[in-house]
Amino acid sequence: MSKRPNVLWIMADQLRFDYLSCYGHPHLHTPNIDALAARGVRFTSARVQSPVCGPSRMSAYTGRYVRSHGSTWNGMPLRVGEPTLGDHLRVAGAHAALVGKTHMIADRDGMAWLGIDPASEIGVRQSQCGFDPFERDDGLHPDSPRQQWSAYDDYLVRHGFDSANPWGDFANSGLDADGARLSGWLLKNSRLPANVPEEHSETAYMTDRAIAFMQDAMTRDEPWLCHLSYIKPHWPYIVPAPYHDMYDATHVVDPIRHASERDTDHPLMAAYLQARVCQSFSRDHVREHVIPAYMGLIKQLDDNLGRLFTWMDAAGLSENTIVAFTSDHGDYMGDHWMGDKDFYHEMAVKVPLIIADPRPEAEATRGSVSDELVEMIDLAPTFMRALGCPGMPHVIEGRDLTPLLQGTEGFARRYTISEHDYSWSEMAKALNMPQEDARTVMIFDGRWKYVRCEGFDPVMFDLETDPDEVTDIGRSQTEEHVAVRARMEKALLAWATRHHSRITATKAVLSKQGMAAEQGILIGFWDEVEYEAATGKPFAALTPAGPPRS
Amino acid sequence: MSKRPNVLWIMADQLRFDYLSCYGHPHLHTPNIDALAARGVRFTSARVQSPVCGPSRMSAYTGRYVRSHGSTWNGMPLRVGEPTLGDHLRVAGAHAALVGKTHMIADRDGMAWLGIDPASEIGVRQSQCGFDPFERDDGLHPDSPRQQWSAYDDYLVRHGFDSANPWGDFANSGLDADGARLSGWLLKNSRLPANVPEEHSETAYMTDRAIAFMQDAMTRDEPWLCHLSYIKPHWPYIVPAPYHDMYDATHVVDPIRHASERDTDHPLMAAYLQARVCQSFSRDHVREHVIPAYMGLIKQLDDNLGRLFTWMDAAGLSENTIVAFTSDHGDYMGDHWMGDKDFYHEMAVKVPLIIADPRPEAEATRGSVSDELVEMIDLAPTFMRALGCPGMPHVIEGRDLTPLLQGTEGFARRYTISEHDYSWSEMAKALNMPQEDARTVMIFDGRWKYVRCEGFDPVMFDLETDPDEVTDIGRSQTEEHVAVRARMEKALLAWATRHHSRITATKAVLSKQGMAAEQGILIGFWDEVEYEAATGKPFAALTPAGPPRS
Repeated sequence: MSKRPNVLWIMADQLRFDYLSCYGHPHLHTPNIDALAARGVRFTSARVQSPVCGPSRMSAYTGRYVRSHGSTWNGMPLRVGEPTLGDHLRVAGAHAALVGKTHMIADRDGMAWLGIDPASEIGVRQSQCGFDPFERDDGLHPDSPRQQWSAYDDYLVRHGFDSANPWGDFANSGLDADGARLSGWLLKNSRLPANVPEEHSETAYMTDRAIAFMQDAMTRDEPWLCHLSYIKPHWPYIVPAPYHDMYDATHVVDPIRHASERDTDHPLMAAYLQARVCQSFSRDHVREHVIPAYMGLIKQLDDNLGRLFTWMDAAGLSENTIVAFTSDHGDYMGDHWMGDKDFYHEMAVKVPLIIADPRPEAEATRGSVSDELVEMIDLAPTFMRALGCPGMPHVIEGRDLTPLLQGTEGFARRYTISEHDYSWSEMAKALNMPQEDARTVMIFDGRWKYVRCEGFDPVMFDLETDPDEVTDIGRSQTEEHVAVRARMEKALLAWATRHHSRITATKAVLSKQGMAAEQGILIGFWDEVEYEAATGKPFAALTPAGPPRS
Repeated sequence: MSKRPNVLWIMADQLRFDYLSCYGHPHLHTPNIDALAARGVRFTSARVQSPVCGPSRMSAYTGRYVRSHGSTWNGMPLRVGEPTLGDHLRVAGAHAALVGKTHMIADRDGMAWLGIDPASEIGVRQSQCGFDPFERDDGLHPDSPRQQWSAYDDYLVRHGFDSANPWGDFANSGLDADGARLSGWLLKNSRLPANVPEEHSETAYMTDRAIAFMQDAMTRDEPWLCHLSYIKPHWPYIVPAPYHDMYDATHVVDPIRHASERDTDHPLMAAYLQARVCQSFSRDHVREHVIPAYMGLIKQLDDNLGRLFTWMDAAGLSENTIVAFTSDHGDYMGDHWMGDKDFYHEMAVKVPLIIADPRPEAEATRGSVSDELVEMIDLAPTFMRALGCPGMPHVIEGRDLTPLLQGTEGFARRYTISEHDYSWSEMAKALNMPQEDARTVMIFDGRWKYVRCEGFDPVMFDLETDPDEVTDIGRSQTEEHVAVRARMEKALLAWATRHHSRITATKAVLSKQGMAAEQGILIGFWDEVEYEAATGKPFAALTPAGPPRS
């Protein structure tokens, strides 16, 4: 086994930070994830760079803010040549493998323009966020042109679950009393058991695939990073037995919301509240019906992680594998009268993050909790450091978490940032916002959360006096609030004007080039005397004209 | 001849806007450039996106701000895959050719990573700002590892000017009374005639090459854009006879400067004033010696443009060729106690811009002057429009100038922006600024020029009350100045947070994808009734499970 550790980077999809027992959920017990926290560091203030799958993940995989990588929402291809964690690790001789979801949309036009065959090794990596795909499945197979027959569909067919859309008809449907299929896309069906045994469900299947990857990797002497990326508990909210009826309305915690929020006169917030998914989850009966299924999906995930960790222990992998667990964003579930994600309240933008490093260097922090402001883009540089990959400060915008994992000095962040492009949304349509202006950006300093809304007043919350974020002080004229907003705008401006697209060379590389380039380029010298005084070198005047070249 | 026009895009290097007679120079007569202005529109408020060659040009060639393309200074490669004007024109069936300088540094690491052979057709374009190079010569061939033997060097050797560095030894040197070579790199030699006859100088040679390109292009039925990019009047400041003694100290206009500027306590401005080139050009004897040579270089350029336009008239090209004339930045020449360029006073950031469109649509504006705020990045979309290329609003940040050329409504800009990365400079060393913080950005609204300096107070000028820009009001506490600064910061923030990296698809493209993607993705519907009420479509529940796939 290599002396360098491996990294297992587990990502759930749409998992709220507060739906795990180690993060305080009163009814949902997740002992396997809790045990991971007991072996590592649990972060209480980790936020994603966009509260929606695609851009959040592109930030995670590139270590760069959304405004840097440019894949601002789910359908927006990640530009060809945008450097990823996988690319950096590969240069360092480590293997970056994908098992599950990325939400990557390949830049096919860009590849065509640069003459890159999408089926070539380079083309495949450019299509898979820089990973080598062991298994790619984004976990949504609707009955539509978007449907992509996956290896999981093949698997279901092999196990007797045969239809034109096994993912939809079995893994994400229930049955009525007469055996008729009832779609998991409809919320009223959330409490039915999925039409597939647990061991053949998506969560179990992907766990099996991670084990298969690791079995395969053990035959080679190369450190690896495995991105095990589960689709659940993302919608469709439907879970196999026995998880479908482990929880009921008595286990549903009260919504975080206040009547006054519905009266907002902020045009953008008002438009959010009018969106169908927000209207839907504002109804108590929807919350009480769907949340037990959501909890069941998380409980199932925890059990599968227990199975995975047990297997890794037996295989001898645990002692040399850093395990990280997180999510790409949360889920409103009716809080603030909202549904799904797409804005910046804590249940949408804050995610669980646990990193357990088995190495002796991390002994001091085992079982500890870190309240530092961390971002999803910090994972890439942390993993790069662990796998012996040189830092890429001209590319990577995240910050290496190693000091926090080893209990040493050196990590500091004053502000955390998240962005959202809502040009595709009902809100943009209702507000008639052009694509270029349908955007918001959040900046949070640990107390004040400021959301800049292009074309509108900002939204702001004070999490110290208003931890539930029910009072928007974005237009408050109190002296303190005015001053905080000015400070936040200055901090955003410092962030936004950084040369984040300057990725082609480091200063060190440029210095070498520069020294060569400057040789012979003489700017502002009056005569030989000035030149020699300034440089300490004789002025090499070739008199008369130099010799012929040939 | 194609019905689409051709475009001849002429760029001088380091040409101040006010060193042409049509822009008001009292002693320097440039009748050929003036005649171009009489045939077209002369812009009095055109600014570059960076006051230094490389980034200014990368903005010109991409139609994008520096913070977008990321090539922030001269040595920074333009990232592979960054879309250029040439790429867009090629898709539209037009030919984009380079004759002269681009200052492009190819992203060789990026090409290697994507498997692109730099010698392939795609690789060559990726190395030449998207142009097909008819002739590439950046015009600096020092005696150093940077030296690149060019076609112009070959040309000189063929004409008997044979040495190891003909560019340096002949085109950019003079001779003393004994025939010994005196380098044009030294300012004291500026008034010598260059050691080459005018007809073999760089300006004449590149003019000949443009004629050769057009002769070649006339044999094909394809519209073209020719970027004729002269190195001069950029340093080394030395010009062949008879231009070397057309002007003397009596033709040198007074410097624009005030004693108070030397007393600045702004750390960055003070560091500029300490830089060698600023110290050098602050001396009157340097200005009085160098400026006549600079004027000679411009006069020579004007004469060569006269020769070129005469040839085009005779060849029948003028009637169907849009001619644009501009520069990549200016030259302080001792104004404000500064030399070279690299900051935002008008003589550095403002450039001449003349566009003459021979087509009838432009009849109304012939000989007119436009005071609109325009930017160098506006040229790319203007040329794309002229050549029938679809707009690329998700990529191009400049604005089509066609309305200004045709005298119609539709052009509007409130702010013009320019950026500078000084991490390579003496100022950064003196201030010990890290690479990521050594940056400034200017925003100008036609009256107020605000320069944000990371880590320092801003610099600001009011061009209405202080047209010479000698009084820095960046820290003034008058109510008006405080309010203007706040407004400028807000405008900068709106600009900097735009999704300028979101270049892989337009909203129109995404809408098509999105409609397909959304089909079957049902978010927030409780039941069939809600679905059908919202969509007007029946809920296609497949009951029982759909048929097998095969």
